[in-house]
Amino acid sequence: MIVGVLGPAGSYSEKAAKGWISKESKSEGTSLVYYDDINDTFTSVINGDSDIGIVPIENSIEGSVGITLDLLLESEITIIGEIVVPIGHCLLSKGEIKDIKIIMSHPQALGQCSKFIREHFKNAEIRTTGSTSHAAKLANEFCEMAAIASKESAREYGLKILVPNIQDWEKNHTRFIIIKQGKWKEDEACVPENDTCKTSIIADIDEDKPGSLYEIIGEFAKRDINLTRIESRPSKRSLGDYMFYIDIEGSTGDADIKDALYYINLKVSMLKVLGSYNGYKLDN
Amino acid sequence: MIVGVLGPAGSYSEKAAKGWISKESKSEGTSLVYYDDINDTFTSVINGDSDIGIVPIENSIEGSVGITLDLLLESEITIIGEIVVPIGHCLLSKGEIKDIKIIMSHPQALGQCSKFIREHFKNAEIRTTGSTSHAAKLANEFCEMAAIASKESAREYGLKILVPNIQDWEKNHTRFIIIKQGKWKEDEACVPENDTCKTSIIADIDEDKPGSLYEIIGEFAKRDINLTRIESRPSKRSLGDYMFYIDIEGSTGDADIKDALYYINLKVSMLKVLGSYNGYKLDN
Repeated sequence: MIVGVLGPAGSYSEKAAKGWISKESKSEGTSLVYYDDINDTFTSVINGDSDIGIVPIENSIEGSVGITLDLLLESEITIIGEIVVPIGHCLLSKGEIKDIKIIMSHPQALGQCSKFIREHFKNAEIRTTGSTSHAAKLANEFCEMAAIASKESAREYGLKILVPNIQDWEKNHTRFIIIKQGKWKEDEACVPENDTCKTSIIADIDEDKPGSLYEIIGEFAKRDINLTRIESRPSKRSLGDYMFYIDIEGSTGDADIKDALYYINLKVSMLKVLGSYNGYKLDN
Repeated sequence: MIVGVLGPAGSYSEKAAKGWISKESKSEGTSLVYYDDINDTFTSVINGDSDIGIVPIENSIEGSVGITLDLLLESEITIIGEIVVPIGHCLLSKGEIKDIKIIMSHPQALGQCSKFIREHFKNAEIRTTGSTSHAAKLANEFCEMAAIASKESAREYGLKILVPNIQDWEKNHTRFIIIKQGKWKEDEACVPENDTCKTSIIADIDEDKPGSLYEIIGEFAKRDINLTRIESRPSKRSLGDYMFYIDIEGSTGDADIKDALYYINLKVSMLKVLGSYNGYKLDN
């Protein structure tokens, strides 16, 4: 099995991938292929170059990863699992703190450490990279460059950990999803392996009348189905027009969820089921 | 009146500020002060260095501006108005297209043009700046640098427009809010000047039971109050725990909105009214 992940080596995506593979006991015959960015990782799955792909979707400090949400809407893929990974950003460099003039990382990581950067490196130049580990790889070149990345990246690219745990809030987790080629099919219901069966949908509520979102989530509420997440994302049609990304607890195999989705489908202009899947959480 | 905006000159924030000042007929005795980033603009209002501040909150392609949402929660400020500005990003440089090795802009603008960048400048180095106009100012230094910014920025910093209208979707608008010092007070209801009176709140729904968000928006739905926006933002407490940012049509002076807010306040652990205000839209 080929697993496409956001690379290079040492990335949090790699940690997520290794964690998921071990939880699913799929280590044998599995190899990781590293991609430059989230877009390329999706493309490798859509084209069949990777059997599955692992990409970040949400962080506990910075919120949703916009590009992942957009690609979930545009692409014919299915979510088959999720894994939550603890994040511990460090300031890494070959040089010393006084040398640092440039700080590099993925935009999400820069956002997660924005207070730290403002307080200590107000005048540094900020550069974005496709992943945190890519920043670490680049930081190996000059002493005046620092990367915000994991301690694994420090080891991988021979950098010193100048400051550990620099995120703005103590608790920092990222949720990754595991995707495969092709649209979700009705027979692909999650079979509960633990308590965390989850179903993800996108609903396009085109009417601008009061109560339309209310009616949609009411179909879940009246069946006691717990919403674990609701996120709006611009539809790109016009300002104030949104798609809603909704995660609920339970499997599409459950009668009440089947019912709720049936009635929601009648009320929206588009309903896309992204998948019905199990989840894991990695320890620190 | 001192108006704090995200600078330097030529920024979309400046366009928003000038537009709002003219709509409100407050040009006389008004001067703009430019700040490096959104954080500094907020601080200038909180400290009283600026009488009002103008900051971006939402874009029709990239969605919410996370730092603005976080600062609205943390700060004692009131929203007193909004203005929607059409965005037309251009690729600007002193050099030619073949020279470009570095592309700079604000992370939101980079996100709004991500397809363009991927297609035409896959190998360029991406650098983020505090604003689009700051990128234009920097691009004046080297021919190998390009900025993604407005045509006004091109004029301001002597750059050529290499490619106009490079955003990934034809329609691109950013909504800016006008903020002033101090918490919102009950007597600060919007007096409708046109049809666009709006009220913005943040609700912290701490209980993880099915239906809690449903009950909150039900208070609006059953009074036929239109939700124009609902956005979740991580509470930073743990993954899966959110604050909800909700915009509704109407003024806190309306009896039904007063009622709805009263009952919502009983159901949530925190309700913050950000303001009740009029809005404008600038033409292309």
